[in-house]
Amino acid sequence: MTDQTPYVPPRVWTWDSESGGTFASTNRPIAGPTHDKPLPVGKHPFQLYSLATPNGVKVTVMFEELLAAGYDAEYDAWLINIGEGEQFGSGFTEVNPNSKIPALVDRSGPEPVNVFESGAILMHLAERFDAFLPAAGPARTEVINWLMWQMGSAPYLGGGFGHFYAYAPEKMEYPINRFAMEAKRQLDVLDRHLANHEWMAGGAYSIADMAIWPWYGNLALGRQYDAGEFLSVHEYEHVVDWAKRIDARPAVQRGKMVNRPSGDPAGQLRERHDASDFELRTQDKLDAAE
Amino acid sequence: MTDQTPYVPPRVWTWDSESGGTFASTNRPIAGPTHDKPLPVGKHPFQLYSLATPNGVKVTVMFEELLAAGYDAEYDAWLINIGEGEQFGSGFTEVNPNSKIPALVDRSGPEPVNVFESGAILMHLAERFDAFLPAAGPARTEVINWLMWQMGSAPYLGGGFGHFYAYAPEKMEYPINRFAMEAKRQLDVLDRHLANHEWMAGGAYSIADMAIWPWYGNLALGRQYDAGEFLSVHEYEHVVDWAKRIDARPAVQRGKMVNRPSGDPAGQLRERHDASDFELRTQDKLDAAE
Repeated sequence: MTDQTPYVPPRVWTWDSESGGTFASTNRPIAGPTHDKPLPVGKHPFQLYSLATPNGVKVTVMFEELLAAGYDAEYDAWLINIGEGEQFGSGFTEVNPNSKIPALVDRSGPEPVNVFESGAILMHLAERFDAFLPAAGPARTEVINWLMWQMGSAPYLGGGFGHFYAYAPEKMEYPINRFAMEAKRQLDVLDRHLANHEWMAGGAYSIADMAIWPWYGNLALGRQYDAGEFLSVHEYEHVVDWAKRIDARPAVQRGKMVNRPSGDPAGQLRERHDASDFELRTQDKLDAAE
Repeated sequence: MTDQTPYVPPRVWTWDSESGGTFASTNRPIAGPTHDKPLPVGKHPFQLYSLATPNGVKVTVMFEELLAAGYDAEYDAWLINIGEGEQFGSGFTEVNPNSKIPALVDRSGPEPVNVFESGAILMHLAERFDAFLPAAGPARTEVINWLMWQMGSAPYLGGGFGHFYAYAPEKMEYPINRFAMEAKRQLDVLDRHLANHEWMAGGAYSIADMAIWPWYGNLALGRQYDAGEFLSVHEYEHVVDWAKRIDARPAVQRGKMVNRPSGDPAGQLRERHDASDFELRTQDKLDAAE
């Protein structure tokens, strides 16, 4: 039953900082730093400032895959707690004026280079090491097609579907329908493609898989937004199979632990500064099991 | 006054093809072709299938800039009418399984290469001609940072703000607030950056400018969603100045006409198959003025 005055937008939008649901306190209509806070710098050539969201996991998986393949990609991964507004610290906004994780400082060259946006970080590392992205030719174009597909599609899944289904202060039918339809369409795009491709692009595991897996792989495995049943994710069988193949990779298992501050203690590594950090975590797990 | 039963999502989402507002008929939860229709192929090495939306304009501006700079980037631009579902034709989905414009077939090499997602097309052309994207170094990383920023940000402007402010069947306060705040934040990110940069990245006009201008440049110039006053776009002075600098470029003037099927006749060129097509259009304009 409806008896509601239709909403009429004002002539000029103004900020009501009280509204917004989960993450409301971290959403602002203005950019720039809110406080002075330099970033820590560790001993390795790559300094990552991140959190184990899907966009964060893309990059830690890439680092772990590079290390597993023998490249000299040692990194320090520092935790940025977005719930506490650490992305608005002055050091962070200097690296990424967009105040989003992940952000990377590449100190392997003559001068530090700031890299932001998860897709840009994947490209930067792939080109730096000539790995997981063909250097030229149609296979390179294919990988970049699907990497860009992920960058342009996931906002509908995360900022659209995930927000309205899981985080908004109340359930709204129209936005949930709009974004559920798009999330299912995207899953179907992937499912049809993966029906006759082992990997997303270029005939090999690449940064396209690493970009798509944390969003759509986890979604297909029922790990995102508690929405597996709602979106009937089991129907996308080829996505599920591909997601499991990637999930089984040891580097992926490590990458998804990094900068995860909560949840199962055995699945989290708050910060990563050395390969042995994972072994210590495994030891913690064995200790806990005793 | 509100007397409304709260919405409770069903356990399993199902498609109600009646809902959805403007563009509802073109939104579907399934991918793949809906009908057989091969794509036309013209005489030039590059075959573009597009429409003059912001994502389409990115690519036609790039082609016109390449041609203006003397590169051999001759192209046929074919109109894809998304209101009539032409993006679901079998020929189109073969090139782009995601059924979105723009899509490109590069026939300049030994075999045709399919390129989709506007950001991927910009990268592909930039690397093909070594133009508007530095080949290596920090300037290259900067350009890719901002290109990726555009790819991940504009869905909040187009699929979020634009949809709920301009196209949804009714005005909903929460989604409009959510996405207006984000659109303003994005404009502020750009404004602070452009306060001390002539161009977005790398010290020169690049594919980052070409990607960002059709969305945020047009927004700042009051041409998107009739939302200039609502978002107070005049406050983002550095974005406005940068947008005007780009708007004044002859290649941009040409690029934004291509694949535009409606509006001011002098500003539209339904298809583009030859540089002289623009001159004919100018002649039409002179004729009409007589």
